Amino acid sequence: MGCNYAALSIVAGRLMEILGREWVISERDLIEGYLYDETPEPIRPKPAEHLVLVKPGSTKEVSLILRTANEYKVPVFTVGGRTGLVGGCIPLKPGIVLSLERMNKIEIDKMNLMAVAEAGATLSDLIRAAESAGLFFPPHPGDEGAQIGGLIATNAGGVRAVKYGVMRNYVKGLEVVLPTGEILNVGGKLLKNNTGYDLMQLFIGSEGTLCVITKAVIKLFPKSRYMVTLIVPFNSRSDALGAIPEILKSGVIPLAIEYVQLREIMRAAEHLGERWLVEEGFAQLIIIIDGVRWEEVLSACDEVSRICESHNAINVLVADSPREQNRILKIRSNMYTAIKHEVVDILDVTVPPAHLGDLMDTIDKIAAKYNVNLPAYGHAGDGNLHVHIMRDAGSMDLVEEIRREIYMAAIRLGGTITGEHGVGNIRGKSLSLALSEKHIELMRSIKRIFDPNNILNPREYL
Amino acid sequence: MGCNYAALSIVAGRLMEILGREWVISERDLIEGYLYDETPEPIRPKPAEHLVLVKPGSTKEVSLILRTANEYKVPVFTVGGRTGLVGGCIPLKPGIVLSLERMNKIEIDKMNLMAVAEAGATLSDLIRAAESAGLFFPPHPGDEGAQIGGLIATNAGGVRAVKYGVMRNYVKGLEVVLPTGEILNVGGKLLKNNTGYDLMQLFIGSEGTLCVITKAVIKLFPKSRYMVTLIVPFNSRSDALGAIPEILKSGVIPLAIEYVQLREIMRAAEHLGERWLVEEGFAQLIIIIDGVRWEEVLSACDEVSRICESHNAINVLVADSPREQNRILKIRSNMYTAIKHEVVDILDVTVPPAHLGDLMDTIDKIAAKYNVNLPAYGHAGDGNLHVHIMRDAGSMDLVEEIRREIYMAAIRLGGTITGEHGVGNIRGKSLSLALSEKHIELMRSIKRIFDPNNILNPREYL
Repeated sequence: MGCNYAALSIVAGRLMEILGREWVISERDLIEGYLYDETPEPIRPKPAEHLVLVKPGSTKEVSLILRTANEYKVPVFTVGGRTGLVGGCIPLKPGIVLSLERMNKIEIDKMNLMAVAEAGATLSDLIRAAESAGLFFPPHPGDEGAQIGGLIATNAGGVRAVKYGVMRNYVKGLEVVLPTGEILNVGGKLLKNNTGYDLMQLFIGSEGTLCVITKAVIKLFPKSRYMVTLIVPFNSRSDALGAIPEILKSGVIPLAIEYVQLREIMRAAEHLGERWLVEEGFAQLIIIIDGVRWEEVLSACDEVSRICESHNAINVLVADSPREQNRILKIRSNMYTAIKHEVVDILDVTVPPAHLGDLMDTIDKIAAKYNVNLPAYGHAGDGNLHVHIMRDAGSMDLVEEIRREIYMAAIRLGGTITGEHGVGNIRGKSLSLALSEKHIELMRSIKRIFDPNNILNPREYL
Repeated sequence: MGCNYAALSIVAGRLMEILGREWVISERDLIEGYLYDETPEPIRPKPAEHLVLVKPGSTKEVSLILRTANEYKVPVFTVGGRTGLVGGCIPLKPGIVLSLERMNKIEIDKMNLMAVAEAGATLSDLIRAAESAGLFFPPHPGDEGAQIGGLIATNAGGVRAVKYGVMRNYVKGLEVVLPTGEILNVGGKLLKNNTGYDLMQLFIGSEGTLCVITKAVIKLFPKSRYMVTLIVPFNSRSDALGAIPEILKSGVIPLAIEYVQLREIMRAAEHLGERWLVEEGFAQLIIIIDGVRWEEVLSACDEVSRICESHNAINVLVADSPREQNRILKIRSNMYTAIKHEVVDILDVTVPPAHLGDLMDTIDKIAAKYNVNLPAYGHAGDGNLHVHIMRDAGSMDLVEEIRREIYMAAIRLGGTITGEHGVGNIRGKSLSLALSEKHIELMRSIKRIFDPNNILNPREYL
């Protein structure tokens, strides 16, 4: 489905009445910056030609926009911070691009340890607002330009999800606008809520296909008084990964357990004009430990070091200054950026955590079979691996074949094709590898309930 | 909808072919024990007359039962451990009562820190299986006879949900059978999964109206090496409740923070033929703290004691032997049982945690207004309060009026009518107080997708 241009220009006129002329933008050069996310260029879908960008200032305005679009059956594509990796926000059909950037207020409720954030506020805004109230928003799903609405719509994960989980665990309430224009409030500042079907849980991770998220209640934590980052180099991957289940069984729950390989992490440092802190050991773990007492953090570090050493760690670097730890996180967060120009696709397959080593070994075999480079690193504590298919794979047919082999390797180990990035506009054709026909059929039926005219982020698989 | 008795007897015959005669039971006296849960007698709905009880031994058999029932449009009522408080499992129409008690296997995956449990295994089975593998299943939603399927279908909460959350946070994968007979697997041993709409999250808490849960992957934690229970008496409720946000902001995250009043907890002890440990202080907090190091637990206890003392705690009792702590938990878990014969309804209203004091003050005013006793205690760290309407309320009209006032008090404070027990067969008529008409309409549409013939746990509000 697309829409005819006549309908789009009538709707654009209506939207100008609703929002005022300044918030309805038709000039392509002003829209251009809203049409792409971080999906690698070789597989990035091409945005449609005829688009109108709107920037509402309130939930009421979002409701009027959707009501109008629904009336004329004009597609609406919600964009957040455009940091996604599966083209989820790229508008593939003529229609309306909806940016919530003006709706970016954050209130902190110190007594209930919660934030109420509008969807257009960024991750960076939330981190800073929490901090200035003496509180802490633990997860760190990469780019801090991501917006709250997008983080929730994609159920973002990232590093620092080992201890308190992914975005879903933090969302306690949502204000959303349905494609038909109704405003719906689900949940609240509530830690327990069993009042009817939990539509909020359905909205989280539905990639903006069921509703536009306009506001969220987000659980915060007390600020960790102490935080330490360990870098632990090993000569072998199996030693590094073998240490992880033992750490998790010891009772120490780190904020993050990341697995990186020396070559890629050094490259990320270089990309930023920095040096990586530990230049030995093929396989490295980056482990973040926090706590309320210094002795507790130290003792957890001792326990983790002891376990790593019993798995042949070369040594343990301890970073305890905030500056040094931020530098480590920044270098880690730039691993993709550093190689992006050579990347054809970045995958985020996920397996039961203890099977991560098996998955990586299989990926090595796939790399050898096709004689290509498949750099991999990831959130090892969560069993979530980023594997990159690089330009050396050659043709897109070969890329497709390699991708499919990696997907099947994950699925055979009890895993799935995407643990973080979601389906977006590029993984729909692979969904049937991981989900049954009935599952996909139920998804389609649910989509139709919420969005009878299929106007909101239309997807080819829904 | 009901079903005609001819259809039911044809189906009973078919079920005997599927399951064998011994697992299809028509004798009323053998069925009687499956027809009630823990809902107080005055508001407990009356089960239907014509019922057949079936006890399948496998998921395949569950699928055949549902397929057959769907073909003949015969209602199916799934029962678990029958520990619910809202009549959710009581079969109100002629049909099939489905008990999964024979499907009760539990496997522990030590490397991934997960259990794979069949739906008919009990909470007690799970606790023991985890323990014998050196692991820990933290939440404790009351009665240990509850079954895994029911715990998930009702998204059970209970004590010990402050640190790691309610049942939803533990469920990582489900095997379910749809009312139309298809077997669906959602999730897995996965800590991150963004592959399509998360139907698993929709099933959790949907009270068995969308599917029959047959198996679940449940996240476990390392066994806390040390656990301490504090009982802290205060002379005033506002002092006791005022300490809670400060504890939570201190960075100490207890497993549980319970609020009880002296009279009711002493009565529970007496009911068990025991004595309560602290016989002073009108308002008491029961706080459970666990950790991997003894020093860490001690220091958390110190911090909590310091905060409580600064809120005028009378003193702090520290219980550190497992025997004594189990005794405390057992007395706490029997508060409802001890007064059950006088209870007309047990509510589980929930508000933002910091507003619990306001809610309790309002409930006191309601009690004074109607000149009744409204004993209350609850999971204070979660803002979840159990308020009991007693026989002294008199007529059911008055019970209804008082209940509605309590619901409205919670809603005005940003809360909801049920944080734990769910809607079941008795709260449907109150749903519209908490949910918008559109929300309920969406629930109905979702129900129709999964269960086109409305055979599975039919509800009057769906």
